Amino acid sequence: MTPAERAFLEGARVGSLATVDARNRPHAVPICYALVDGENGLRLVSAIDEKPKSTRELQRVRNIRSNPRVTVLVDRYSENWARLAWVQVRGRAEVIHPDESGHETAVRALRSTYEQYDDHALRERPIVAIRAGETRSWGALEEWT
Amino acid sequence: MTPAERAFLEGARVGSLATVDARNRPHAVPICYALVDGENGLRLVSAIDEKPKSTRELQRVRNIRSNPRVTVLVDRYSENWARLAWVQVRGRAEVIHPDESGHETAVRALRSTYEQYDDHALRERPIVAIRAGETRSWGALEEWT
Repeated sequence: MTPAERAFLEGARVGSLATVDARNRPHAVPICYALVDGENGLRLVSAIDEKPKSTRELQRVRNIRSNPRVTVLVDRYSENWARLAWVQVRGRAEVIHPDESGHETAVRALRSTYEQYDDHALRERPIVAIRAGETRSWGALEEWT
Repeated sequence: MTPAERAFLEGARVGSLATVDARNRPHAVPICYALVDGENGLRLVSAIDEKPKSTRELQRVRNIRSNPRVTVLVDRYSENWARLAWVQVRGRAEVIHPDESGHETAVRALRSTYEQYDDHALRERPIVAIRAGETRSWGALEEWT
């Protein structure tokens, strides 16, 4: 991941998480995410809007259990197509439950990125953590303004 | 697909196309798209930025050949999270080459949706056409303004 790709991910506010279900069909949902640097490299973390006592798991969680390979796409659209840009991060995802290693750090990173989480019970929710692997990008990454 | 979901797709300017590669890894790229109503229902069409004589196919085209099941995600982000919304369309994709059935209609739909295509050689490029299947959505779809 280049510094420009990293800065693009840090400047964006939403991405798209693509997973694959047990029947090899793609699934995609928007995610709010934060970046966490750790011993094993960069991770993208996002909160799951799941009720703690829900019996039915979200599709993305079921998919990650059966196939941890995911892709996060972050793009910028502009009517001036000279300003289009995107970054695609491939990685391996895992679900981190409250009290598991890394959960507290992820919650802190999400709270410092999104003040909207101030009134959300993030500490009670699972987190999807994606270890960033191969990154591809295209377009005018530098022009965030 | 509900009228609100359809209107959301018509109002947006960019989506994310998720495909699955031959090793069952997800892939995602932004797409500009247009809607086309036909005998077999609604299709989402998008142009491929491929040079006509390119020898190496784009990843999304290789993926669609090995697995035509795709998902298109269109989302709206807002710092006011009460205004978040997304529509996810599952479907089957095919690649339509110039002079094949449906190509001309797709090019017309793309040109009428994006004036930016005025100076692009769309008639020489393959089109990805996705027959819309199951649709899911979430959030404040109606509030496009």
